[in-house]
Amino acid sequence: MKIIVDAFGGDNAPLEILKGAAEAVAAYGHDIILTGDEAVLRQVAQENGISLDKMEIVHAPDVMPMEDHPKSILREHKDCSMAVALRLLAEGRGDAAVSAGSTGALLMGGTFIVKRIKGVSRPALAPIMPSDDQPVMLIDSGANADCRPEMLVQFAHMGHIYMSHMFPREGGPRVGLLNVGTEDTKGGELQLATFPLLKESGLNFIGNVEARDVPAGVVDVVVADGFSGNVLLKTIEGTVDMLMKNLKISFMSSLRTKIGAALVMPGLRQLKKKLSTSEYGGAVLLGVNKPVIKAHGNSKAKGICSAIRVAAEFAASGAVQQIEETLGKKKEEPAE
Amino acid sequence: MKIIVDAFGGDNAPLEILKGAAEAVAAYGHDIILTGDEAVLRQVAQENGISLDKMEIVHAPDVMPMEDHPKSILREHKDCSMAVALRLLAEGRGDAAVSAGSTGALLMGGTFIVKRIKGVSRPALAPIMPSDDQPVMLIDSGANADCRPEMLVQFAHMGHIYMSHMFPREGGPRVGLLNVGTEDTKGGELQLATFPLLKESGLNFIGNVEARDVPAGVVDVVVADGFSGNVLLKTIEGTVDMLMKNLKISFMSSLRTKIGAALVMPGLRQLKKKLSTSEYGGAVLLGVNKPVIKAHGNSKAKGICSAIRVAAEFAASGAVQQIEETLGKKKEEPAE
Repeated sequence: MKIIVDAFGGDNAPLEILKGAAEAVAAYGHDIILTGDEAVLRQVAQENGISLDKMEIVHAPDVMPMEDHPKSILREHKDCSMAVALRLLAEGRGDAAVSAGSTGALLMGGTFIVKRIKGVSRPALAPIMPSDDQPVMLIDSGANADCRPEMLVQFAHMGHIYMSHMFPREGGPRVGLLNVGTEDTKGGELQLATFPLLKESGLNFIGNVEARDVPAGVVDVVVADGFSGNVLLKTIEGTVDMLMKNLKISFMSSLRTKIGAALVMPGLRQLKKKLSTSEYGGAVLLGVNKPVIKAHGNSKAKGICSAIRVAAEFAASGAVQQIEETLGKKKEEPAE
Repeated sequence: MKIIVDAFGGDNAPLEILKGAAEAVAAYGHDIILTGDEAVLRQVAQENGISLDKMEIVHAPDVMPMEDHPKSILREHKDCSMAVALRLLAEGRGDAAVSAGSTGALLMGGTFIVKRIKGVSRPALAPIMPSDDQPVMLIDSGANADCRPEMLVQFAHMGHIYMSHMFPREGGPRVGLLNVGTEDTKGGELQLATFPLLKESGLNFIGNVEARDVPAGVVDVVVADGFSGNVLLKTIEGTVDMLMKNLKISFMSSLRTKIGAALVMPGLRQLKKKLSTSEYGGAVLLGVNKPVIKAHGNSKAKGICSAIRVAAEFAASGAVQQIEETLGKKKEEPAE
């Protein structure tokens, strides 16, 4: 398996990207293509004693700036490390691509360089979130702020296919529609129109799910428009951060609490690991022709290594082909 | 100040409602009208040694069932304890009403018994949420799943007025629009149309706010459509619950952690208190002619006592009159 990695994406590039790629080579034996400034990459690798064994570098001197408009990946920054990674993927030079760079740019590049599967209205960005049970896929998490019911049904199919392969469960992944209540008649126009379509979709649709129940893991695929999906995702992040910060302050407040904290720490570390998003490699871009993984912008080596592992598993699963078979339009049909 | 309390609303009615009312009488000296089955209330009070000093009971034998359609408060259950409480408020028999019963029914009853302020498109349900800084008002949290930009602007005005009185801050409460990013051009159609209107509103509008930053308390009023507002509110609740549950499991896992937990417990209790919603009395129904407070359905005496305190402060503040002056239509103008 050959994974293409944007070596200049994210807050900790290129050092942590290089380290993560080397970890993935050592752990899983994958081949890697790194995109980015070749001289810099060779120098950073040498200075930090990172082996470039099984890694090929494709030179790309430009970097996609986080603050630039996503569209610039197709124009001013069409030769940035992310664009080059996606172009190599489109050309079949590797099996999957990983980037920790700008989410908007990756979505834009995924859609227009790797290209949308014909028949899929809109690609969706689907993070894998930790829960009290198995990991949960949220689709969409912000790629499409305004959605039509048909788009949500496609998201449900794509999420169902991905999770069937990656986190199999007897009876198939449980699909839920994010809503303000569990009754069938809850929600706004979008949810009321989507509910009957999901009921007839043939998926393991278990009905509406409230945001309150998502962290407990009552469903495997949460279907949402990108706006409320984004609110869900970021509220979890913000709440966990706020709690952890306050916990730390509370633990450091006196000698007594410091001793107590030392005693409970191993369990807390395990809890932190359980809730850590870096285990699952970030978010998946679904609805494009090849596997693309968005690693967290603040990924360290471990997160990049996980993302590479997930990218390879995703490529091996055949999920993209299955999405194409399920939602794709044959060539003779008119394109949307 | 005379507060009307639905004695049969919520999971712990009537005992905890009675206790909370008695606490409020003792602490703040308010007069109370309790609505509900008089014989039952007198018996429960007697059996539990609760003084009914300064409390009047208005008999209402029926209770609004949680599972019934909210509309039934206007029909089949028009004489339930909640409906009677709201009717007494509309008739001017008290200064504010408190209920821990069905949110939907309270919204329906608030809108059609207490009645909407003419000129306000839709009343909104606005919980006061704990944050790392001052408490934060979220408006709307689910009363209106689908919103128009003009509604969000009215929510902003109502939230601004309420928070100016209840949690004053130099320069006025900071109003933020819930969005998927902080840049001015973020969001869906609704947010893009609302942003310029809020900018021209004369309020202390600080721009878009991401869900991630709400728990940290970067704004005082979060303006949202009821659907994504509901997702925000319930995600915080679900995430806190999941973390606290796991923390408890982690603390109880061995003798070592149990000792540690005992040492850190006082700080944790303080943290739990800081994040507890029962301090702020629940949610406010804004846009109706009198102060109506929705206490949490699972409120104990303390939560009810807080809700009564908040209801009295709300009534004394003149916020309802100010909302009417700001958004209300004079009689000669045609009604919406």
